[in-house]
Amino acid sequence: MSLAYYYDFMSQPSRALYIILKMSGVQFEDCPVALRNGEHLTEEFKTNINRFQKVPCIIDDGFKLAESIAVLRYLSAKGKIPEYLYPKYFVEQARVDEFLEWQHITLRITCALYFRTIWLEPLLSGKRPSPEKVETLKAHMELNLDIVENVWLESTDFLCGNQMTVADIFAACEIEQTRMADYDVRIKHPKIRAWLKRVRAACNPHYDHAHQYVYKISGTAPNSKL
Amino acid sequence: MSLAYYYDFMSQPSRALYIILKMSGVQFEDCPVALRNGEHLTEEFKTNINRFQKVPCIIDDGFKLAESIAVLRYLSAKGKIPEYLYPKYFVEQARVDEFLEWQHITLRITCALYFRTIWLEPLLSGKRPSPEKVETLKAHMELNLDIVENVWLESTDFLCGNQMTVADIFAACEIEQTRMADYDVRIKHPKIRAWLKRVRAACNPHYDHAHQYVYKISGTAPNSKL
Repeated sequence: MSLAYYYDFMSQPSRALYIILKMSGVQFEDCPVALRNGEHLTEEFKTNINRFQKVPCIIDDGFKLAESIAVLRYLSAKGKIPEYLYPKYFVEQARVDEFLEWQHITLRITCALYFRTIWLEPLLSGKRPSPEKVETLKAHMELNLDIVENVWLESTDFLCGNQMTVADIFAACEIEQTRMADYDVRIKHPKIRAWLKRVRAACNPHYDHAHQYVYKISGTAPNSKL
Repeated sequence: MSLAYYYDFMSQPSRALYIILKMSGVQFEDCPVALRNGEHLTEEFKTNINRFQKVPCIIDDGFKLAESIAVLRYLSAKGKIPEYLYPKYFVEQARVDEFLEWQHITLRITCALYFRTIWLEPLLSGKRPSPEKVETLKAHMELNLDIVENVWLESTDFLCGNQMTVADIFAACEIEQTRMADYDVRIKHPKIRAWLKRVRAACNPHYDHAHQYVYKISGTAPNSKL
């Protein structure tokens, strides 16, 4: 096979792209990268796989490409992603792009920082963050969850209309990450709660497969949690 | 004219998109929004212009679209952006997309946070940040400037090859913002210094026009600084 996919299920965009590849029926060489073991930090990885030393990334017939959304667009241009997941008509595509560009420094960064500070950093350093820091990070995250709840999901079943797209998959994978930091998004956000159920149902069995470690680490059985 | 462009020259992506529109010869209705006066925070702006209450954004024949990169891609799909600025061939476009997706939570967020904390917040609150906070933010920013210097500009004149693209324009506008916080990127980053000169030369007179307030506030005369 010509397409190699490098990923770690502990990485939110890695899960999103994995689910999208599976739903699209794209054949790929499965290349898991154990971030916990620093497999992305070697010179060999930097030289031969991804100069930014991150996942996810692909090598497609020798063409190395990083950044999940750039990869998605590249594969869409190659005709590998079905139109219902990422529209080809430019006006509909713009609406999905609007979310994909919006989420980086809003939903993604605040959910990821919450997860890192509450779960990952204490694991690595043995030190717990101060309650004030936790509250500040939670407030920033909830501000963006409120925008998902009240603006993106204002009047539609999914983020960019009544059809699920890649935007929903990227967003759900970011929000699921906070489970591991013992955050339950469903308490304050009933629309997100119902939407997450719809996204999971539309993406399974790939959604549960990609989230297996999230479920395990958070100790949440998906059938009761979603 | 059917395309209305809402922007503020104090906003980095607003400047980038303005320069791109001007270089592309796109006709648009000029709609400056004074962020300093909270013009984006009104209910009227939220309802009629941008539900996220940010700039830049467009209204194109009634189609409202936010997020600078989504707007760029939409206008490119409409044939409004010349191919040398944003390639149409999907492999070359993927390389530019890789940068546009990379920069959000790396170069953009760290330069913007440095600017906000050192320049904007003291102006609004009257309180200066602690020296420790400044050092931490500077270290995060310089980590990403190092990646621009050593990886993106490793062996080419511009970020995505030897031809300037929109990637360079977005990146330059982020880096220029730090001038206002009295940061001089050129001291530690000789490749960025030379590259900024090339980007400015390729984009003028639009580059200097969009940066007029950056130059004024930072007290730097562009001919001597670049």
